[in-house]
Amino acid sequence: MTPGRRPLPIEGMNPPADGWSLGAGPQLIEDLMAFVRIPSQSATPDRQPDVLRAAAWLADRLRRRPFDHVALMPTARHPVVYADCLRAPGRPTVLIYGHYDVQPPEPLALWQSPPFEPAIRDGKLFGRGAADDKGGVLAAIAGAEAYLAAHPQPDLNLRFCFEGEEEIGSPSIRAFLQAHRDQLACDLVVSADGAQWSERQPELILGLRGGCALEIHVEGPRTDLHSGTYGGSILNPIEALARLLASLRHPDGRIAVEGFYDGVAEASAFDRAEIARVPFDEAAYRAETGVPALHGEPGFSPVERCWIRPTLEINGIWGGHTGGGPKTIIPASAHAKLTCRLVPDQDPVRIPELIERHLLRHAPAGVRVSVTPGGFAAKPYRLAADHPAVAVAAGVLREVFGVAPYLTRSGGSVPILMTFLEVLQAPSLMYGAATEDSQLHAPNEFVYESCVHRTAQCFALLLARLGGTLAAPGPVA
Amino acid sequence: MTPGRRPLPIEGMNPPADGWSLGAGPQLIEDLMAFVRIPSQSATPDRQPDVLRAAAWLADRLRRRPFDHVALMPTARHPVVYADCLRAPGRPTVLIYGHYDVQPPEPLALWQSPPFEPAIRDGKLFGRGAADDKGGVLAAIAGAEAYLAAHPQPDLNLRFCFEGEEEIGSPSIRAFLQAHRDQLACDLVVSADGAQWSERQPELILGLRGGCALEIHVEGPRTDLHSGTYGGSILNPIEALARLLASLRHPDGRIAVEGFYDGVAEASAFDRAEIARVPFDEAAYRAETGVPALHGEPGFSPVERCWIRPTLEINGIWGGHTGGGPKTIIPASAHAKLTCRLVPDQDPVRIPELIERHLLRHAPAGVRVSVTPGGFAAKPYRLAADHPAVAVAAGVLREVFGVAPYLTRSGGSVPILMTFLEVLQAPSLMYGAATEDSQLHAPNEFVYESCVHRTAQCFALLLARLGGTLAAPGPVA
Repeated sequence: MTPGRRPLPIEGMNPPADGWSLGAGPQLIEDLMAFVRIPSQSATPDRQPDVLRAAAWLADRLRRRPFDHVALMPTARHPVVYADCLRAPGRPTVLIYGHYDVQPPEPLALWQSPPFEPAIRDGKLFGRGAADDKGGVLAAIAGAEAYLAAHPQPDLNLRFCFEGEEEIGSPSIRAFLQAHRDQLACDLVVSADGAQWSERQPELILGLRGGCALEIHVEGPRTDLHSGTYGGSILNPIEALARLLASLRHPDGRIAVEGFYDGVAEASAFDRAEIARVPFDEAAYRAETGVPALHGEPGFSPVERCWIRPTLEINGIWGGHTGGGPKTIIPASAHAKLTCRLVPDQDPVRIPELIERHLLRHAPAGVRVSVTPGGFAAKPYRLAADHPAVAVAAGVLREVFGVAPYLTRSGGSVPILMTFLEVLQAPSLMYGAATEDSQLHAPNEFVYESCVHRTAQCFALLLARLGGTLAAPGPVA
Repeated sequence: MTPGRRPLPIEGMNPPADGWSLGAGPQLIEDLMAFVRIPSQSATPDRQPDVLRAAAWLADRLRRRPFDHVALMPTARHPVVYADCLRAPGRPTVLIYGHYDVQPPEPLALWQSPPFEPAIRDGKLFGRGAADDKGGVLAAIAGAEAYLAAHPQPDLNLRFCFEGEEEIGSPSIRAFLQAHRDQLACDLVVSADGAQWSERQPELILGLRGGCALEIHVEGPRTDLHSGTYGGSILNPIEALARLLASLRHPDGRIAVEGFYDGVAEASAFDRAEIARVPFDEAAYRAETGVPALHGEPGFSPVERCWIRPTLEINGIWGGHTGGGPKTIIPASAHAKLTCRLVPDQDPVRIPELIERHLLRHAPAGVRVSVTPGGFAAKPYRLAADHPAVAVAAGVLREVFGVAPYLTRSGGSVPILMTFLEVLQAPSLMYGAATEDSQLHAPNEFVYESCVHRTAQCFALLLARLGGTLAAPGPVA
């Protein structure tokens, strides 16, 4: 199939109700293939010139059409590609976020076609970054262009902010936003780094879990001891650690740390009803993960446990002899790494303190127990279901996809959304061309051509309808 | 100080009560230095010629004096150095055991003098193998020579059996003993691979713990899972392993595995009184090991816990992410290595079965739990306190050292003693020139010159007194 030759409206897509056409079809896919060809791997030292090349390519792309002030704005590392269209004084402002960097493609052997030679098969465009996030970025730009083309007198202002460090944890973005707070002022962020439930089923993510991390260290004897000579009178540090880890959760699945649930906002009946709408096939889930049975907090469905309930995971453990054969020692120490997923309104600073207090309280006399920071902290994020943008965004998804979106949560964390809220006082919607099956960060990443087109159309319609919905400039959180 | 120039009787040593002198002083230390110079590291591929050189040297040493049938007897790997003196037909036979191989000397940087250049400082002869076991081997030979010199008509028969694989776990010795069962027939084994409590305090070890080993494997999801996406509905394999490990012992220190204590023979009041005689300084023990507090099974002293009570140690644990920084995963699996120390009459085959049964019974539904063998199994060993050789051996130690020996146990395992019992039906005494502070297997291994001389004297007196004590040929176990 020749890329990008499929005319709009695509099969199965409803024609835009506003009566104007996106008109970006073939060019949008051609642009995406050109963009994917640039291996902008932010984590790979050798690829730094390509990251800059992608930024320059994207700025050129933005200069093609009716945007103003296109600029590469320096950060501590990779530039932010900025553009705006501020032709509606006194009207609200929407900031569109995305990223132009990509994950490394390894392992290369598992790709059916080379990761940076985009290929279309069965309506899927394969290539590293096709879904995460180059498809979303170009769809957003195309949608904004269509909106502006159809609305010569726009009733809102637009800004674009595309970073080049998302895949390495956005180390520069908070300082960048703080330094340019006024220039980036907005009433709503729409992240083009979102995803749909499937090719034909849209979703609107209303919340993400936060997280925190810590490491536990249990120190016993000064050195490994001979288990024959000393075994019986010395507390084994691995055993002490095992007992401490087991103490963190009741056997039924509830976390046993005092105060852990204190900040958890109970989900509303509406929230739980929306989550219950999302189909869940337990047998398929077991088959996908390979576990013999599911497990979790009583009183909640498996989906609720992952979306609206906090959890605690032991991510790693080590101590003593881990090589081949037996070694009859009492090890000197044992260690574990823990992370929690947190929900509104748990505090990622407070929770590790509670866990540390629990551990020290339960520490037996025969060992020394200490806790160090784990290098991860993210506040949970929630977009109120009654925020005016939610109804607009959901309506657009329903119109373009022909079915109402699931109102979902994500069990993961997207810290940038909280950064936007904290620095710009702007809540975030998530729209995107990726789907749950897009193989993000994995070999054979792809985006459905149809989803790229639909996402462009969604952005166009969203912008057309938000102007009348959002309040005048100023925080709307 | 010139090595070996100190005349007998050495300072602090009682003159032999039998009225005959050992007369081996200077030569014994000179021999030991020559023997230590041979780096007979059985575990080191490059040192295999040196292992054979040590065997040849030892055979030559045995040919110097009144022994018969000196021979290098092949095994699957390193030869056994054999000799005998069978001039008392119808009288009992004593087999003296020891080993001529040594541990590797690494780390070399920690040695104050090179490990294979024996050096005497402050009455201590430093060098790899000086204490383990070349000092004991040569002291035994010197003692036997002195005995034979003073008793031209001996009332017992002697055999020597020195192996070259002790430091690699004696892989050939059982088959060797089985193949030469008749040639090695004896009534009592005296192992020269023993030790004294200190330079001036003798001990007689009446029992050793056995042991067993297993590995536990907990498998959860097929691969590591994203803790954001899946955290909450999947049982964490590390947590499951921690809970299983914690379940193996009651919090008070007693092992919780059903049937674990069934085979444990209660120590007699005599045994416990003898153990209570052994000085134990808890503060010094804590300072030595570096633990903030001791810990163990209630109802037993720290020494009893290590000598006459079984225990269970987690020797190693691993699972998930153990590198730097956080990694927000639910790991696919977690693993631990376990060993037990066992006491009479626990069975090293049965105990792992009981532990496996406990683990499978406690395995939660969300993971798969399996157990594999750990590569270590040793029966516990006990020498009855009322065996006639015990009183003789203890009397000799008291006579030579001037103080009564402690009747001790060892918390470790010496599987060869059980092999002698099973194959030759002969119980074992342990005599040796090493002391608890000899730095066995560590840098700066040493043996007290005085202990080498005393051990030679002990062997001489022991042989002189055993003939009248042991029954006529035949098992005495």
